Parts: sequence; structure tokens; C-alpha cells
Amino acid sequence: MEQAAAGQARAPRIVILGAGFGGLAAAQELGGAPAQVTVVDRRNHHLFIPLLYQVATGALSPAEIAEPIRHLLRRHRNVEVVLGDVAGIDTAARKVRLEDGGELPYDRLVVATGSRSSWFGHPEWREHAPALRSLEDARRIRSRLLLAFEQAERERDAEERRRLLTFVVVGGGATGVELAGAVIELARRALKREFRHIDPAAARVFLLEAGDRLLPSMPRELSDYARRALERLGVEVRLKAAVESVDAAGVTVAGERQPAACVLWGAGVAASPAAEWLGVEAAKGGKVEVEESLAVPGLQDVFVIGDAAACPGPDGTPLPGLAQVAKQQGRHLGRELRHHLPDGLPPAPFRFRNRGDMATIGRHAAVADFDGRTLRGRPAWLLWGLVHVYLLVGFQNRLLVTLRWLAAWATNRFGARLITLEEAPGDRSDAGRAEQA
Amino acid sequence: MEQAAAGQARAPRIVILGAGFGGLAAAQELGGAPAQVTVVDRRNHHLFIPLLYQVATGALSPAEIAEPIRHLLRRHRNVEVVLGDVAGIDTAARKVRLEDGGELPYDRLVVATGSRSSWFGHPEWREHAPALRSLEDARRIRSRLLLAFEQAERERDAEERRRLLTFVVVGGGATGVELAGAVIELARRALKREFRHIDPAAARVFLLEAGDRLLPSMPRELSDYARRALERLGVEVRLKAAVESVDAAGVTVAGERQPAACVLWGAGVAASPAAEWLGVEAAKGGKVEVEESLAVPGLQDVFVIGDAAACPGPDGTPLPGLAQVAKQQGRHLGRELRHHLPDGLPPAPFRFRNRGDMATIGRHAAVADFDGRTLRGRPAWLLWGLVHVYLLVGFQNRLLVTLRWLAAWATNRFGARLITLEEAPGDRSDAGRAEQA
Repeated sequence: MEQAAAGQARAPRIVILGAGFGGLAAAQELGGAPAQVTVVDRRNHHLFIPLLYQVATGALSPAEIAEPIRHLLRRHRNVEVVLGDVAGIDTAARKVRLEDGGELPYDRLVVATGSRSSWFGHPEWREHAPALRSLEDARRIRSRLLLAFEQAERERDAEERRRLLTFVVVGGGATGVELAGAVIELARRALKREFRHIDPAAARVFLLEAGDRLLPSMPRELSDYARRALERLGVEVRLKAAVESVDAAGVTVAGERQPAACVLWGAGVAASPAAEWLGVEAAKGGKVEVEESLAVPGLQDVFVIGDAAACPGPDGTPLPGLAQVAKQQGRHLGRELRHHLPDGLPPAPFRFRNRGDMATIGRHAAVADFDGRTLRGRPAWLLWGLVHVYLLVGFQNRLLVTLRWLAAWATNRFGARLITLEEAPGDRSDAGRAEQA
Repeated sequence: MEQAAAGQARAPRIVILGAGFGGLAAAQELGGAPAQVTVVDRRNHHLFIPLLYQVATGALSPAEIAEPIRHLLRRHRNVEVVLGDVAGIDTAARKVRLEDGGELPYDRLVVATGSRSSWFGHPEWREHAPALRSLEDARRIRSRLLLAFEQAERERDAEERRRLLTFVVVGGGATGVELAGAVIELARRALKREFRHIDPAAARVFLLEAGDRLLPSMPRELSDYARRALERLGVEVRLKAAVESVDAAGVTVAGERQPAACVLWGAGVAASPAAEWLGVEAAKGGKVEVEESLAVPGLQDVFVIGDAAACPGPDGTPLPGLAQVAKQQGRHLGRELRHHLPDGLPPAPFRFRNRGDMATIGRHAAVADFDGRTLRGRPAWLLWGLVHVYLLVGFQNRLLVTLRWLAAWATNRFGARLITLEEAPGDRSDAGRAEQA
């Protein structure tokens, strides 16, 4: 990368780490500003994570919820995009080090690297209970779900068949609720009539939550409604059910063994290693404590936003790890940085405007909470669909997702039920055979 | 799998290996027949291979050209689908052995396992010059293409940057021609304005053909037109250019070294190991010689169709490995087997009806050959699009592909430009980190 010649007149360099909801919003606000902006992400695409569970269950295709970051920022000539992994940050020298050895000097640094899944100190569970954070994860989970039905169809042993048709979702937050609802719909609707030796509708789906209610961040009436709605769909909801162990054959919950071929992890979230990179003490969940200006106390010109930040909310407790928080913070910080480019003054305090929180449960059921005013059932479900299509990035994706949903609704078909594997079945033996032929 | 009790009254068991164009057509014709039909494939989806190159170049999404086989056959209650790999065939005992240890007894066997890529006795080229046969291949090639541009954007060394922006397509048949055209359009149109340090339009795309013309199966005038049209797009076509070596750094052709980061293989095709499984001598390209009835001489009730078969055409030479040949053979054989279920007589001879052959070259250019009557340029391009949408399986896919194409045509955008990797970048380091946080 050619850097502008150093000197008084050089445009300030703003480096943004991560192109999720927060980082992307900040970059967009800085488009056209008299600053040299560099966005770093380890993927080439911005991902609409709220709909990732629909890719995992075969309702949507990966490209429908992802857009190349370059493409989203192509009109902003002062913004460049770098595909790379952060290796560390030297706050004294004001440089970001990348895994490939590259270095990015900065005048202002925005850390928006989000969160990752956490298996509560049990990294060995990861393999057996994959979480849903990336398109690769979604594809892996989709293949695992569909393979379980394929294997059950060929299995002669009744007990093993039952195990193959048992699905466990761990975690009763929005991710777990949406995933459990989607898995049971896959089994009961999308796969109907397609098997000859098993009835996919006989599949059991468990949703395990360690606390005493689902959707703990929502009002209790919505938690109760969500539970009833899931149970109506056929999901077996277990509250106060903390997972004790996960292995290839199933899970153990409260001393009880539940054989299951497919365990999905929707439980723990930890911040990205931003605190470690910045050399500051991590707050709860590995987050970086920031001031209301989103600046990191004690560091010059370093800001953290989104899931990586512990930012005080109106009541003093940290704001939740939601897309809307990240997006609002990114937009706010981008604007403030732009505004203060000449004077270098700190950003104005960030004020979160709660636009409401929603979770969908299945066909015709969802819950929505607008700061105390609640909505549920079919109206919430319709609203959920409209809002999510509206929030999707890119007109083409909005249109495609709308079409997929209308088709799925009308025909009970899921449009993207492909099993694809890292190593395709038979690839290995083939390599040799092809040459013999 | 429970098998019907053996005996006089048992419905005949027809096993179809492969659910490509041939196998799927045969299975559909046998739907509802008084026979027990089992379709075996090692993927869960039927793939529309003619459009695979558009997935590889980011214009289409995998799910748009693939449908679950189960879903396509769900209405035929006498047809079951097995996800599995063929390990061997015991023609004496009339059994197919699967890799997972399962066995499928048959009364009639249809082998429709198609073809695979072949690197002309150089299996070591495979890694550096991937071929395009599956969705996994397409995704891998797409990531490789897009990563080359990403790396070039970050590369300071001019020579290495040139190497990264050099793409070589080996093979001047339809696959190679379409792939070369799509790669140059990706560089010149879809990536326009998205990079800051390189001009993607400066990318060089070579198309290497060992023979003296492109599209050797078409009339010479179309070969010449295709060459001119590709050159107009910016592709550098090299005829009589046999590849001598391929490695990670580039290719050697006629003693001359061409550095290139991305070499794509569109050259060799070999039949699946059907001959080996059946214990018969393989014909040219590893195919199984069949009679006009599609039966394998010397074997009882065994038929081979599609790319795996060498079936005599009207002039005595074997029919080419085209989708339409496989489809017509599958339909013919399915009908004949159904017709002769009671009497067990051999099928009537297969007669190929040439419906024409087409290849697209890029925006507004294509060639079509209808048994001597030719079409080219924009009319051929429009016809190509209509025919391919019509031939796609599933109404939803037809609609989505049409929309993608219209959008790409109107906006020069390719809708599915995602880099996804088997092992996501940073996944490894993350597994550890997430737990520390």
C-alpha cells in the first residue's frame, strides 16, 4: 500500500477493524471525508447475521445475506478495504499489525471486531456443538442437519435412528429460539414426503436453556409466549437445563443423558480479543470498557464499538450486544470523527435509541418488544419479515429473500437444502481413479 | 432398508446409479411404475452443470443451480433415494455394494455415473489447476479467483502483482470458452471501481487450447467467431498451445513460462469407473461400450447411459458427452424398462435427436449450432439464456436465475462474490482465543 507522504497537510488516517454492522456504518459515514480510511476484515463480505440461522436450515442461500465489503464501499474513493487478520495493535506507535506481516499506521483507530462464540470454558464441545457465526458455520450446520436425516433413512437400528433424529439446540436466547423453530419446520414441513423409511416429522427438537425462561432480555410475557409457540410447533423446551457435557453421541443435562446426533450451540458469546490487542483489562465477556464517547480510557484516539465494547447505557449497565447498538455506534462515531477531523476534539457522547427487539419463532409467530410495548403472533411475524428485508443490505438481496420467503410460505419448500462438504464424499478415492481411467 | 419379501409377486427392483441428467430422467420416467426404484448418488442434489462456471465466477449462487434429488422425486412413492458412494458391483449376484457397507440387490441396473475431470496422467496438476465438476469445486475456484485480486491489491512488488492478476484457462471446449469469458467479465465489469491500488481490468486472461481451434465439436466458422469474440473481450487465445507443466507459480506452454496465480482446468474428461465396477474392458476415455439398446454386451439387465457410456451414434461414432444425450438416453431407457417390466424384453434401440449445441462467450455473444444451421452474436446469446433458464430444474431457480441475470446485465454486478474457505481465515487461532476471553 502506498501511503500518502507524511507531513502537515496529509489527510488523517482512520483505520477501522471489522466490517460488521458497526464498522461498516462508520466507514459509510466517513465516505468522502478528507480522511484516508482503511477498513480491515478477515472476510471479503459483510454478513447479515440475524438471518444466518435461515442459511443453516436451508431456507436461504449464503449470497442472499452477504455482500462484498468492497462493493458496499466502492463509491467512497477515500475508503480502501483490506482483507486481513489482525495480529496485534501497537498503541504507542499507532500501528495495527496484520497476520500477513503488513502494518497499518493510524491517526484514529476504530475497533469493531465484534464477538465470537464461547463454549463456557469447554473448547472440546466446539466440535460436537457448532455455533453459528459465519457462512462456513451455517453451511457446516446445514450439512450436518440434512446428513442426520439421510443417515436415519439408511439406519436399520431403531435406537440409533431415534438418536439420528434427535436435535438439541443449546441456549434460549434469540439465536436458540429461532434455530429451534427453523429446525422443527425443516423436519415437519420442508422434508415432508421425501423419505421412504423414516418420517422426518417424528424428529425431536430440544431447546435447552440454563435460566428459568427463554429470551431473557425480553419481558416475561413474551418469554412465556415464545415457549408456548415453540411447544405448539413441537419443540421440547427445557428450562433450568444447564448442559454438563457434549460429545459425539449426545448431551448430558442435569445428570440425564440425551442421545443426539446433532447438537447446535446458541449459548455463549465472548468479545473478540480487542482488549488483549489494546493491552487494556477486559471487562465482562472480554469486552473493552469505553467512555460515552466510545473512546477507550487512557488511550489516545482509540475507539471501540459494537459487541467488542462495554458502553454504558442510560441506566449505567452496559448496552446489549445487538446489531442496532453496533450500527448506531458506528454511525455516531463516523459522523463525530468526520466532524472533528479539523480540530481533533473527542466525539460527543453516544446515546442509544432503542428501536425494539424481535425474535421469530416459526411460521406465523414472532415476538417484538418496543421498550415495553409488546407485539406477538402473526402481526409480530409479519413485522419481523418486513423489518428484516428492509434491513438487508442491497436491493438484489432484498428481492431474492422476499421471493424465497414467499415461495417457502406458499409451498413449504426450503430453497437451499444442499449438503456440501469440505472434502466432498469420494473425492479422495476419485483423485486416483480419474488418472487410472 | 427393508426389502420387500422375495418371491414371484415381488415388484422388480431397478437400481439407478447417479442422479445427473441421465439418471434423473430415467427415475422420473419410472415414477409410479410397478417397480421398486432406488436412486443412488453421492451428493444430495442434482446439479445443473452447464451453469456451474457462473457459480465459479460469482454470478450465481450454488442453490440456484442445484435441487435436492429427494425433492425432485418426492411425488414418486415407488422411488427411493440413497445418499451413498458406489464401492463395486457384483453382476453375478446382481448387487451394488456401497462404501458404507450397504448392499442394493437389483433386477435391472442403470449406471449413470457420468464423467470426471482428468489431468492427462498428471494427477499432481490437479491441486494447481482445479477443474469444475461440483459445487465444492465452483466455490473453491471462486475463492481462488477473488483472493488473487485481494492479494494483488496488497502486493507491492510489480512483478508478483502481474502474476497474481494473470489467469490461465486450459482447454478450448465449451467449458474453457465460457469460463474464460466469465473471468474477464468479472475483472473488467464486476470488480470495476472496487480496488484502490490495482486496476482489475488490467488482469490478463489466457485461454490455452492444444488443438488448432476453439469449440472443436462445432463448425469452424463458429470456432473462429468464438475466438474473435473472446479476443474482443480481452481474452488472449492461444491455439496449438499444449500445456507442458502446471505448478503453484504458473504454467509452461511450448517451452515458454507463463507466471499465473490462478490456473483453471477445463480440458480433460474421463468416464467414472463404471467399466471397472462392471468388470468390462473400458473403451476410449474409460467409457463402457453399450449396444443401441444401451445394454452392456455380455451382461444381463445392465445398462449404461450418459457420459459413462460409449453409445454408437447414427454415423457409428460414439455420441458426445452432452447433457442432452444423457437426458434423452435416461428418458428412453426409463420408458423402455417400464414398458418391458412384464415381459423383460430388451429395450428398443436408442435414437439421438440432436437439439443443437450452444456456448456463451460473454455479454451479448454466444454461438449455437443446430446440426449445421448456425447462429451467433446477440441472437444466439438471447437464445442461450432462454434455453438455459428453461432447462433449469425447478420454477424457483428459473425465477432467481432470471433475476440474477437481469440484475447483472443492468448493473454489471455479480451477485454472489463471496470468498468462503474450508478453514475460515483465523479460525484456528480463534478457537484458542475464544476460550481465553
